[in-house]
Amino acid sequence: MSLITVERKILEKNDEIANLNREKFRFKEMFTMNLVSSPGSGKTSLIEQSINVLKHKLKIGVIEGDVQTNLDAQRIDALGVPVVQIVTNGSCHLDAMLVRDAFQKLIDLDLNLLFIENVGNLVCPAAYDLGEEMKVVIISTTEGDDKPLKYPAIFHNSKALVINKIDLLPHVNCNVDAISKNAYSINSELKIFETSCTTQEGISEWCEYLLSMVK
Amino acid sequence: MSLITVERKILEKNDEIANLNREKFRFKEMFTMNLVSSPGSGKTSLIEQSINVLKHKLKIGVIEGDVQTNLDAQRIDALGVPVVQIVTNGSCHLDAMLVRDAFQKLIDLDLNLLFIENVGNLVCPAAYDLGEEMKVVIISTTEGDDKPLKYPAIFHNSKALVINKIDLLPHVNCNVDAISKNAYSINSELKIFETSCTTQEGISEWCEYLLSMVK
Repeated sequence: MSLITVERKILEKNDEIANLNREKFRFKEMFTMNLVSSPGSGKTSLIEQSINVLKHKLKIGVIEGDVQTNLDAQRIDALGVPVVQIVTNGSCHLDAMLVRDAFQKLIDLDLNLLFIENVGNLVCPAAYDLGEEMKVVIISTTEGDDKPLKYPAIFHNSKALVINKIDLLPHVNCNVDAISKNAYSINSELKIFETSCTTQEGISEWCEYLLSMVK
Repeated sequence: MSLITVERKILEKNDEIANLNREKFRFKEMFTMNLVSSPGSGKTSLIEQSINVLKHKLKIGVIEGDVQTNLDAQRIDALGVPVVQIVTNGSCHLDAMLVRDAFQKLIDLDLNLLFIENVGNLVCPAAYDLGEEMKVVIISTTEGDDKPLKYPAIFHNSKALVINKIDLLPHVNCNVDAISKNAYSINSELKIFETSCTTQEGISEWCEYLLSMVK
């Protein structure tokens, strides 16, 4: 019971700060997305593609979360977009306090769109509100059709699902319709996109959606 | 500070029970492997392939860990191998207590080899000893070369690394040598295998290794 109490207190404290973050983001008229996926599903690649398409239309910033290394932040920095790296040193998810502190370094940039790339993990980030306007869950076609059923919380808590790496469909045992059906069974309101960051298929639809969210 | 104290106590209690599990496994002359990977890297497929090759040489059992569903256990059950499903109901890793309870249902079967398939998560399972003889980390070629650097704990704590889905190498931007180099930089003692559960490439080498561990 003491564990459960501690955990609830941590989440309560997190949600309090998340709400303050959200107020700050809205006051700045900045749309904030929290991107969650397994390691290697293509979160950073999707952000890179979005920046390439939208950088002349929107002022974009990125907060990168990683257990270790700043490899992803280096990729974003190479595109000339402001990026802050959070290294969690072993922790399995971002929390609202970490995002609050990271955002201090972006607060004066008048951003329209902030991507927060969470730690690669389909489980723990589902429980943590960072103050974002919406969570986006990303899975790749190589991960199997059953993932929405096996990791339901993040599909339940997200507003959009990006099914990435559709260029690999001819080579893997994956049924995109089955992924969508399983995802809708958890959350019938999900907006679903199919993308390839290699061939750019579906990226323009995704970017139109981003534009419609920001404006 | 109070959070850190609670966490340490949970890990201490876990390690105590893990050591009792290990004694039990050794007394039963059963070799136990804890398989850890991201969701969809191929843990269940690797277990299926190992069972297909080794089922006439070894008595194999499986403990399946999942956040939700018993889909993986159904796949193992179809092969006629004893399997116990642990559904963690949202928790992001197995712990020694869950494994102790699940093992009660397998204890009288005189198994030679027990696979414990952990929850799909590269972060949290690294910290939890289940009483296994060794951890095995699995990554697939679709996840990118940088994963050992970004998730070092599980590579540090494993004795073997399986690089799976090598059949997809012609279609993905992956350098197997870079994965190995990055993995060795974390843990120079790692035994590394390259496998495809689709084409069976590398499966016989992996199964020979399993046989050498059990005997």
